[in-house]
Amino acid sequence: MKKPSLTILGCHSSIPTDKFYPTAQILEMKGDSFLIDCGEGTQVQLRKAKIKFNKIAHIFISHLHGDHFFGLIGLLSTFHLLGREKSVNIYAPKGLKEIIDTHFKWSYTRLKYCIDHIELSSKKLEKIMENEKIEVYTIPLKHRIYTNGFLFKEKPSNRKLNMKEIKKIPDIKIVDYKNLKLGKDFMTKKGKIIPNYQLTFDPPKILSYAFCSDTSYHSPIIEHIKSVDLLYHESTFLKEEKNRAINTGHSTANEAACIAKKAKVKKLLLGHFSNRFPNIKAFEKEAKEIFFNVEASEPLKTYYLDY
Amino acid sequence: MKKPSLTILGCHSSIPTDKFYPTAQILEMKGDSFLIDCGEGTQVQLRKAKIKFNKIAHIFISHLHGDHFFGLIGLLSTFHLLGREKSVNIYAPKGLKEIIDTHFKWSYTRLKYCIDHIELSSKKLEKIMENEKIEVYTIPLKHRIYTNGFLFKEKPSNRKLNMKEIKKIPDIKIVDYKNLKLGKDFMTKKGKIIPNYQLTFDPPKILSYAFCSDTSYHSPIIEHIKSVDLLYHESTFLKEEKNRAINTGHSTANEAACIAKKAKVKKLLLGHFSNRFPNIKAFEKEAKEIFFNVEASEPLKTYYLDY
Repeated sequence: MKKPSLTILGCHSSIPTDKFYPTAQILEMKGDSFLIDCGEGTQVQLRKAKIKFNKIAHIFISHLHGDHFFGLIGLLSTFHLLGREKSVNIYAPKGLKEIIDTHFKWSYTRLKYCIDHIELSSKKLEKIMENEKIEVYTIPLKHRIYTNGFLFKEKPSNRKLNMKEIKKIPDIKIVDYKNLKLGKDFMTKKGKIIPNYQLTFDPPKILSYAFCSDTSYHSPIIEHIKSVDLLYHESTFLKEEKNRAINTGHSTANEAACIAKKAKVKKLLLGHFSNRFPNIKAFEKEAKEIFFNVEASEPLKTYYLDY
Repeated sequence: MKKPSLTILGCHSSIPTDKFYPTAQILEMKGDSFLIDCGEGTQVQLRKAKIKFNKIAHIFISHLHGDHFFGLIGLLSTFHLLGREKSVNIYAPKGLKEIIDTHFKWSYTRLKYCIDHIELSSKKLEKIMENEKIEVYTIPLKHRIYTNGFLFKEKPSNRKLNMKEIKKIPDIKIVDYKNLKLGKDFMTKKGKIIPNYQLTFDPPKILSYAFCSDTSYHSPIIEHIKSVDLLYHESTFLKEEKNRAINTGHSTANEAACIAKKAKVKKLLLGHFSNRFPNIKAFEKEAKEIFFNVEASEPLKTYYLDY
């Protein structure tokens, strides 16, 4: 299976231009492709990134400012035009369903697939999705309107069989493999206990990703994102514009780095850059003074969680 | 004043890609910039075409299929973020106001400028805008949902003064210029009549533009677009897909050319091409068999009405 990765489709704030794309990203984890936010032009960015539309079954929308969802109606419409039949789950604040329904009502469109709207309203961390391999939680953020970040966590997977050692014990049959994978010791016919660690390898490391945008500096998120492998935290401004950040409900690169440091995350990815700073390396430089493993995200670049 | 021109922002149908842009175009006429349709990505195309957002005061939306208006909410939002104060008039079918209002309600946005919604419902040609220099009419089209084309006509302007001849008649004072421009003859103090044509030049030719998309072949439009200088008529398909055109409420290049020929227009511009035909020159070739002065439109290309 592919290593978990995050592909940035857009990482600028507010106004799209021919160089700056609003927020959208694809997390590929355990075989699923999760779309996080969907600014205008996302469907074209998805094509450029060669991500198959039909693999996207879950869409997470942080909040209802346009630069985070104005591309969604176009994407849903394209799903329909391409003949999609697989349903799609949309996790978003109240209001998005009404916006989507109003669009399709006036174009007299009856979608060929189903949309399941999961309306988010909790102001506490909340598990909103779970399958056999992954759990997704909201991360309540602090912005001008109701906003969530999202925490994606792999579930522990089974231990891996050490076939070389297993072959040495003729008593172990295929039917026993399941228990070995679950970590159980093995007892031979003669009653000898063989500890599990001799017969199996550790499972792959559990990886996690946290998306936090848009938000002011907000210390309560630290406990939720503790030790994640990759944190995407907005840094709309540099610290020279700290007052503007406060007034607009955004963060500086410096603040994003403080959060990363306090949460002891493995790596920090900055984004949601204001167009007023054409050189995104300035964000990276500012954050590096506080937190070493940081990168300013770039459109169409893929970042691996297990770097 | 600049010559009237049409700049194509997008001329493909349905699904945007990194090469194909959905319908949007700017007509510049007598100092005004009129935006006609506004598919996803229009604001970025406007930037590439270096068209000033603040010059757009009138937006015409043909119908409520997504490839003709999914970029509008983003553009209106950008107007707001850029601090626009000048109001904007939107001419569109019923439904668009509800869609726009629903968006801004859920983002808690109070626009800094006013939107005047002019709701179109007539099924006959109707004058919907007029100023000192221009008139705009709907052209009822035949599509799957309620759809209008638009006819833009310059008003006759005043005759131009022939200063060389005027200077020869000392009796003519500045105060008389107004009547000369209006075409009146001049009477000298001695009662001699000098005919207007000796003192003035003809005014510039009156130009007109007709936008007809989306539509099936629909002969009733011919009388409305008679002799226009430039006709943009959709040609989603080639004649090999005529049945598909009929079933989806679209036209072939052949049919667009028939309309152009019967209406005796000066020039035909084809557009709204289906993505299934990567070579747009095929549309031009098919139409040329019937109507000589035809071009397949291209994004970011400007076409002059008085060519």
